[in-house]
Amino acid sequence: MVSRERGDDLVVVVSAMSGETNRLTSMAHEVSDRPPARELDVLLSTGEQVTIALLSMALNARGCKARSCTGSQVHIRTDSVHGKARILDIDDARVRADLANGNVVVVAGFQGVDEDQNITTLGRGGSDTTAVAMAAALKADECRIYTDVDGVYTADPRMVPEARRLDRITIEEMLELASSGTKVLQTRSVEFAGKYKVPLRVLSSFEEGTGTLITYKESTMEQPMISGIAYNSDEAKLTIRGVLDQPGVAYRILGPISDAHINVDLIIQNVSEDGTANVTFTVHKNDYQRALTILNETAIGLNAREVTGDDNIAKVSVVGVGMRSHAGIASKMFKSLADEGINIQMISTSEIKISVVVEDKYMELAVRTLHKAFGLEKEHAA
Amino acid sequence: MVSRERGDDLVVVVSAMSGETNRLTSMAHEVSDRPPARELDVLLSTGEQVTIALLSMALNARGCKARSCTGSQVHIRTDSVHGKARILDIDDARVRADLANGNVVVVAGFQGVDEDQNITTLGRGGSDTTAVAMAAALKADECRIYTDVDGVYTADPRMVPEARRLDRITIEEMLELASSGTKVLQTRSVEFAGKYKVPLRVLSSFEEGTGTLITYKESTMEQPMISGIAYNSDEAKLTIRGVLDQPGVAYRILGPISDAHINVDLIIQNVSEDGTANVTFTVHKNDYQRALTILNETAIGLNAREVTGDDNIAKVSVVGVGMRSHAGIASKMFKSLADEGINIQMISTSEIKISVVVEDKYMELAVRTLHKAFGLEKEHAA
Repeated sequence: MVSRERGDDLVVVVSAMSGETNRLTSMAHEVSDRPPARELDVLLSTGEQVTIALLSMALNARGCKARSCTGSQVHIRTDSVHGKARILDIDDARVRADLANGNVVVVAGFQGVDEDQNITTLGRGGSDTTAVAMAAALKADECRIYTDVDGVYTADPRMVPEARRLDRITIEEMLELASSGTKVLQTRSVEFAGKYKVPLRVLSSFEEGTGTLITYKESTMEQPMISGIAYNSDEAKLTIRGVLDQPGVAYRILGPISDAHINVDLIIQNVSEDGTANVTFTVHKNDYQRALTILNETAIGLNAREVTGDDNIAKVSVVGVGMRSHAGIASKMFKSLADEGINIQMISTSEIKISVVVEDKYMELAVRTLHKAFGLEKEHAA
Repeated sequence: MVSRERGDDLVVVVSAMSGETNRLTSMAHEVSDRPPARELDVLLSTGEQVTIALLSMALNARGCKARSCTGSQVHIRTDSVHGKARILDIDDARVRADLANGNVVVVAGFQGVDEDQNITTLGRGGSDTTAVAMAAALKADECRIYTDVDGVYTADPRMVPEARRLDRITIEEMLELASSGTKVLQTRSVEFAGKYKVPLRVLSSFEEGTGTLITYKESTMEQPMISGIAYNSDEAKLTIRGVLDQPGVAYRILGPISDAHINVDLIIQNVSEDGTANVTFTVHKNDYQRALTILNETAIGLNAREVTGDDNIAKVSVVGVGMRSHAGIASKMFKSLADEGINIQMISTSEIKISVVVEDKYMELAVRTLHKAFGLEKEHAA
């Protein structure tokens, strides 16, 4: 394993201490109902700054030379979307110099600065993204994400006791799992890793083990058809009905949502018999009310018939690169769910994933049913 | 009074919230017995960063446009002496731009960055110093220091009930009072104000009032002989005896103390009958043990007879620009103390101040005795 004693250079990216972000957020809400996003970032970024200082002190106290770096000091340059900023580039000169001087460099995750030196935060999972971005900038041998689980499983082990840990998984599968709700890694950090081909390993913070390695080449050996079952109950669904079906209508509906920096996940558009279209899409539950307000405004402009919403939904997905060379996955999935009396509300497919939206109370049953249907408890599932 | 509604531009400099610096310091000592000064500054500077964010949020919530600025964002450039850094310069461009956009600018006190962008802190009273430095850089009409007292008094009112608040005081007197232990303002901030002639006013955070204005011209009216009595029990005294009296000996004794960034206050050197010298000096109690260790090393090199120390001392000072034109102040002071049986251990004088070191148990008695002896309870003392 990577180690300082062996002479490896180490950069450690840390989050705020447990509970700290919530504590700071409550303080903000004590003084303001709607704290300005810029100031919230100034406040929240202190969480990681405290951790880098304390970790550097603790390392030095144990005889390990260490030096802390804030997002501003590393020049983690981001755009200016406070609370959800995206990393644009990293100036690795300072970190390289600190490493060359024999330091472990302890970097504040989750934060950066925009071009006017305003402090930004990256939003959920931001520290993972920082770690991957640092690894990419430094061309690191490996980026290890220490989490509260010991790797990626065929399904959530709390829900499916037979679930197996995967030794390796392709980046495509990992991406689909992450975007389908498997909470091991945030989608953005996996995307970033994929873009720069950062060798990524997921391990437990609490137990020894080799975790799960995310790979960039598919094994020459036969792939299992399905790697895992993911679920997500963080989304809500919105539907706009009776929109005149003409070019650009999807953009006119989803443009304002995107302009409000709300991420859309599944999108379905179908044309009804009277020539008008219905568009249904899902967003994070946190953005649900805001999206509903925007969609209602859009509906007036488009002269739509009605807008409806539902936040009692869950998304269940089967993921596997082996799907590419196997037919009949979708029908097997739909049949298994139907046999349990689970109604499918939306379907979305990609080359290596099939997702369905169901009523949220059926989520666990759907995950267990599919794990069993695809034989994932066995080493070589088929 | 200065006010936003009247159209005045406002820059507000804030400290950490009450108890925050202690909380952070304890966290540091939980992970390390001797936390590196650089990392301690990274940690402590989060205290003010939290305050600027919260105050900016609170102001915006009340309809007052406000924007926060960290020490790094204002480019408060300091030297690299972590924990005790000195401000070298301030780039006021960003603050001026924010003011021009109609913002109240909320600046983090106590912190800066060195030329390598390392975070530094200014040490005790650092937020006052930041405020004065900002006022100087911006050529502000007035710099107001809001404290827990409503102005500068002829003596500490908790000790001397007859003490009077002064409407104005000269910068020289304020400097002597501050350096003699009157805790209204830290010496460094007063020095800074004096250097750049920043109009400075001390007011209460809790009560309305005009406070005490620090002036740069002596009034043409007759000055009171004495403006106030100050005291300080934060110092300890060290003596090195039997050093060969030759050129450079004071430097060889005090150089190593200064190299360790320990401030020396009073210094007395006298030559004894055998041609050897005794040197006595005082340092802050926090630095006492460190200074004692250094002095013992020096004593070996200088072949000195002995080193002694005493931290049960107090310094009591009378301060007043009127002293310049009045004789007999010192003898009146010494006689008043002698009448009360108070032994004087060290004496130090400047043009407008006389300080004596006494055993600390006599401190309060000495302050009350001198306040009465110089008639400070009356408006025109003589």
